Parts: sequence; structure tokens; C-alpha cells
Amino acid sequence: VITLLTDFGLRDEYAGVMKGVILSILPDARIVDLSHGIDPQDIESAAFLISAAYPYFPAASVHVVVVDPGVGTERKIIAVSCGGHIFLAPDNGVLTWMVDSDTFETAVEITDSSCFLPTIHRTFHGRDIFAPVAARLATGMALDLLGPKIRRKDLIRLPDIHPRTGANGEVQGRIVSIDRFGNGMTNISLSCLRSHYPGVDAKKLKIVVGTGWITGMMECYGQADIGRPLALIGSRGYLEIAVNFGNAAKILGITKGIPVSVMGSST
Amino acid sequence: VITLLTDFGLRDEYAGVMKGVILSILPDARIVDLSHGIDPQDIESAAFLISAAYPYFPAASVHVVVVDPGVGTERKIIAVSCGGHIFLAPDNGVLTWMVDSDTFETAVEITDSSCFLPTIHRTFHGRDIFAPVAARLATGMALDLLGPKIRRKDLIRLPDIHPRTGANGEVQGRIVSIDRFGNGMTNISLSCLRSHYPGVDAKKLKIVVGTGWITGMMECYGQADIGRPLALIGSRGYLEIAVNFGNAAKILGITKGIPVSVMGSST
Amino acid sequence: VITLLTDFGLRDEYAGVMKGVILSILPDARIVDLSHGIDPQDIESAAFLISAAYPYFPAASVHVVVVDPGVGTERKIIAVSCGGHIFLAPDNGVLTWMVDSDTFETAVEITDSSCFLPTIHRTFHGRDIFAPVAARLATGMALDLLGPKIRRKDLIRLPDIHPRTGANGEVQGRIVSIDRFGNGMTNISLSCLRSHYPGVDAKKLKIVVGTGWITGMMECYGQADIGRPLALIGSRGYLEIAVNFGNAAKILGITKGIPVSVMGSST
Repeated sequence: VITLLTDFGLRDEYAGVMKGVILSILPDARIVDLSHGIDPQDIESAAFLISAAYPYFPAASVHVVVVDPGVGTERKIIAVSCGGHIFLAPDNGVLTWMVDSDTFETAVEITDSSCFLPTIHRTFHGRDIFAPVAARLATGMALDLLGPKIRRKDLIRLPDIHPRTGANGEVQGRIVSIDRFGNGMTNISLSCLRSHYPGVDAKKLKIVVGTGWITGMMECYGQADIGRPLALIGSRGYLEIAVNFGNAAKILGITKGIPVSVMGSST
Repeated sequence: VITLLTDFGLRDEYAGVMKGVILSILPDARIVDLSHGIDPQDIESAAFLISAAYPYFPAASVHVVVVDPGVGTERKIIAVSCGGHIFLAPDNGVLTWMVDSDTFETAVEITDSSCFLPTIHRTFHGRDIFAPVAARLATGMALDLLGPKIRRKDLIRLPDIHPRTGANGEVQGRIVSIDRFGNGMTNISLSCLRSHYPGVDAKKLKIVVGTGWITGMMECYGQADIGRPLALIGSRGYLEIAVNFGNAAKILGITKGIPVSVMGSST
Repeated sequence: VITLLTDFGLRDEYAGVMKGVILSILPDARIVDLSHGIDPQDIESAAFLISAAYPYFPAASVHVVVVDPGVGTERKIIAVSCGGHIFLAPDNGVLTWMVDSDTFETAVEITDSSCFLPTIHRTFHGRDIFAPVAARLATGMALDLLGPKIRRKDLIRLPDIHPRTGANGEVQGRIVSIDRFGNGMTNISLSCLRSHYPGVDAKKLKIVVGTGWITGMMECYGQADIGRPLALIGSRGYLEIAVNFGNAAKILGITKGIPVSVMGSST
């Protein structure tokens, strides 16, 4: 299986052409679109998305992430092996979660141009480099045939994606993306909350979102009254701000970047 | 073949992750997106769409419909066998047409959690229940292995989706969805018109749409002058309001829910 | 491989139903969406897109283009063989580039209705004619079994898609589409510039876009400062107007149809 995650959108031929290149090399490839709707050049959203999605794919899947504002410049293209999956992406932090994962295995810089298309266009490495390399990786080609190893510490991470502990001991995070339903997804994971507030009843936590707040977490949207805001752990395993039968982004004015804090009853 | 019809949109990973789960269980699955662009929680639009689309798929296809505002609450998940196809959906009326069909065969409530993913998240049954159960159904697993039978009469139907007969004998329906071209699709089927106005020349029918009207039906868009409104039987087999080379929704101000009446020459 | 290029959008069932029909006839078909996001009835954009995309697919692929404002009227449906690929489309100019190509091979009008679905709806030939015929073509059925040959000169071309030479010797073209990133794509190809300005340094060309201009061409977006306009040869091989890390359409007010001229240092 090869998955594609890009900011190419679906109006143009970009995603389709990548599939043409893959199928020309590997006619049996199973190609799955994770999303082509990442906001242009929104590396952070793509980073959260790929880390949430990949575990649901078969082992040895190849995940191609092309959110690549630096296309055609000096930035590296890397392949990372992690948790039995392979990731192919620009070295711009979009693979932060894999690079920092306990299941990180190895990383190489893609330099062997014999796998690329014969003509490399400097505005579309997705077609000319990522797609043909992904097809080779999906055939089982070893990573180290594609270029030299890179040390883990030399790979680029996104700055500032982890929540912090505030002056009063609260967890300070922020909204990192808004989903199709208008739900605001934060960078505060369930495991972060559990380690920060061990044994605390989630119904007693207070969640401050911008200038508003929500008291207590719920388990599904339908537990709130219709039209009411709620906080819950979303399907990615992160704290999410929602409105039952409503669009939280519109109703509550939530946008990307807004600070979100979680306070225990004692803070 | 497994088809997917959801309101998940394509910006997020939700649809892609469902495919990952399906391919993890059934690597040979042929997965077709019917649409992920249903307006959030618009059960009625999804109900019309699936009933129009499924007959064009191979027999024994599994059609998964996840328009599910009640996700995580007490609502049932059902599998329905109808016309040689299998449908998997929440029991919220989205399968009304199959449940009321002459070719309805059987229905079960999905209760056997051994087919689900090990961890069920209460906000994303699409991934954790629907996808793995669909993969099992596509392998040919019998419905009654998945849970107890439900009597047909106990299944939920959408209220108010059939047209009525008005005081003057006219057919009274409404716009149920607007398609990509701005065409207004009604709930008045060709067979309804034929049984209501047997032998009447379609060119003599008068169609009242909100505060406007159209006299006579056409057979294709190009029969009207450019920019002119027209009424015809759309590809789903329902009365449709359109503008040749134009967007009827914008030009005529058509929106979902607007009443549409069809009058014969004698009414 | 069968590719689909339509203006159907992804909200409705239209594209999905075409796949159902194809898979009913040819269960092993590999179907790739090139785009369903062509603006409604924008034949020209589709013509540029298909000509840029098809070379990246395996030989003998079948490319189905349904941008078809004349659906149900007298317009012909044609199959064209070109460069080892097969194209199926309405005869409305959307295949202009293939018809005028050096690698054009043959063209037929599709008339053999034994390959169509039993019932032809006059508003949805994509489902009832294009999809089943595409499936037959993908099985290797010879073009001349589907209908009579058409002479190349009798096929419809789009008017006015080639750039002209202006009074001062400059190349006069225009913006033909805006991509997802807001880049403005012109109808001025690299080969056109090369034959018009042989040996001229691309950094010395002056590009006039509407009421603004850009001096010199770059090779990738990152060569311009952030937020600055630039001109380059885009991935399709045509002159493109962009803004580094920005949306040129919004920032520069570029829209479809705006004139673009390229002047050498001597003009």
C-alpha cells in the first residue's frame, strides 16, 4: 500500500499524475489518498495527520508526504523507517512524530537519481522524485540503496508542537487544526493529560479555549445538548473542542493557533 | 467492491484511514468513494444518493454509509441485504429506500464486537466498527454471524420524504439537494409523475418552484436556451430544476427544502 | 488503467457511479481520478489538463474526459488514439492537443450502442455511455468496432488556444487556469518561448501580466523572496505566474483570461 498526503488539492492533475507515475513502475500498487486538502504549505497539520493515520495501514506501507514549500531548493528528501512503515517526505519537520518515536528505525537522504524520472522539474518533485521513489520502496527496495544514512539528531523537527506546563501547573497547548466538522483539534494528547493529572476525573478538568471555557470532558458528541460546546478526546487521541450538531469553529470562533489550557481542580 | 459514502469530507484523514483498516483485513478490496461531501449530518441527502447509486455497482457489493450524528450514543448499527447488495449504516433512516424496497431481504443489528478494532473510539465508529465489519462482509461473511436479526418494521425510516397530493390534486414535493452544477434535485420521481398523471404529455405539466414556475419538461439541458430555467428528469430518475449553462441554485435562488409542485393541465 | 477527468465535483455520486459501471464490466480495472474539479463546462481547462497529465500514465491507458455541456444533444462522442494512449470524450475540442499532436493515430465516432448501458439517460452519458465504453476499450477492444472512423480534419478544435505574435514581436498569450496554490497558468509553452526567443537568457525576458510585469524568469518558487511575484516554467511545461509562499491569484488579482505577454530585451 502507498498512501499520499499532500497540499495539492483535487482541482488540478497533481495527485492523479503522481498515481500515473507509480502505476507505470508498479502496476499492482494499492494507492490510498490520505488527504490532498492540507492547507498550502501547512507542514504542522500534515505532521499531526500522518502520525494519527499511519498505524491503521498494513505493515510495510509506504507513506508519501508532499507538503513541501521548499521544493526545488536545497532541502533534503528523506525516507524514514518507523514502526514497520516507511515514510517519504521532505526534511522539513513533517515527520517529527516518526523521528521522535520509540519505534524509529533508520533514515536516509534520497540521493540516487537513477530512481527519479529522467527529467526533474524544480516545481514538482512529487511527480518526478517522490512518486517513482515511493514505487521502488513499495517493491521492497532497501532504504540504504537510495542514499546515505542520516543521523537521527540531524533530522529537522517542528518547533513548539508539544504542550507546556504553565505557571500554575496547567497544561498549555493550542488548536493545531480545524476538521471538516469545525471541531478544533489541539496538540494536547490523552497520554499528556494522564501523566499530568494522574487519577484525576476527566469530568473535573477545566478547559480554557481562547476567552471561553468548558468544564469537564465528555466521551462523545451526543453527550452534550444540541448546540452546546464540549471537550473530548478525539479520534486521533488528542483533546478536541466541539459543538454537538454544530460547527465549533464558527460558533465559538476557534481558529488555528488559539491557546488551549487544561486545569485540574487544584489549579 | 466496497463503496464509501460519508460526510467526512476530504480534508482530514477520516476516509483514508477507513481504507487503511479495510486493506489491513482484506488486501484485495476494491474501494470506491461514492462521496465524502455530504453536508455534515445530512442523512436525507445521503439516503437519496445511496439509493440512486448502488444499482450501478456489481452484485454483492458492500455499501458503507457513515452519516452518523449519533455516533457513540445508543443508536444501532445495522447491515441490510437488499437487491443482492449489502448496506452497512447507522439505523437512522439513511437506508430508508432499501428498507422499504421490494427487494429488501434481511437486516441485522451489528453486535459481534469480535469483528471491531480492539479499541473503539466513541467519536469514530467509521474507523473502529464500520470499516472492519465492511471488510468482513466483503469476504462473504453471513449477516447473521454479526448480530441478531431486526424486524423490518423496527428499522428507522426518514419521515416526510415522499411527495404528497395537494388540495388541487397536484403533486407536492420539495428540493432535497443541490448538485455540483447548482441543479435542484427534488423528491418527485418519474414513476410518481407517471402514476399521478398517466398518459399526460410531460410538455404540458406545470412545475412550480418556490415563487416561480416552469411550463413543460425537457429531456436534456441543451434543449433550453442558454441561461434559461428548465425542468427535466435527472439522472437519478427524479424531477430536477436546472438552468442551461447556468447554476440554477444561484440564478433562481433554489435552496434545500423549497417546495416544488407539479400540476397537470387540468389542475 | 482508466483515468477520469470530469467537471462532476466530488459532492455528488456521479464520479463514483461511473466507477461502479466500469467495475461491473471490468472487475480488475485500475481507475485513477485525474480531477473532478474542473469548473463546470470549462472545456479549455480540461484540454490543458489532460494533455499535461496523460504522458505520465502507462502506455495503453484509457483516458475518459467528460466535460460535456452538450450532453444529450447532437454532439458526437469520440475515441482518439494518440501516442499509444486512448482518449474518450465528447467531440467539443477537449482533445484538441491530441488531435493536433504528431502522435495522433486514429479517431472514431462512438455509435455502437450495444456497448452502452441498456437505458441511456440524456443528462448523464458519463454513466450510461462513457463508462461502459471505457471499460470495453480497457479490455483492448479495437476502436473501429465502436463506430466509424472520423477524418482528423473533421474533429473539433478549441479556437484561440495558441499564443500569437504581437505588433512588437512579443508573444501574446493569457492565463488559462489558476491552480490550487493560486498560481496562474498560461498557454505560453516553454517550446514556444524557445522558438520565439532562441538563445535568449530567460532572466532577461520581461513578462507583462495584466497591468503588472515581472522581469526575468526563475526556476523554482523558493528563488523569489517570500511574498514576491515570480515567473517560471511550471510543471506542465508552460509559463506560470506565482508568488513565493503566497497566492498569486489573490495577491496579484490574476484571473482566467487575463493577457500575458513575454518580451525579449530587444522588443
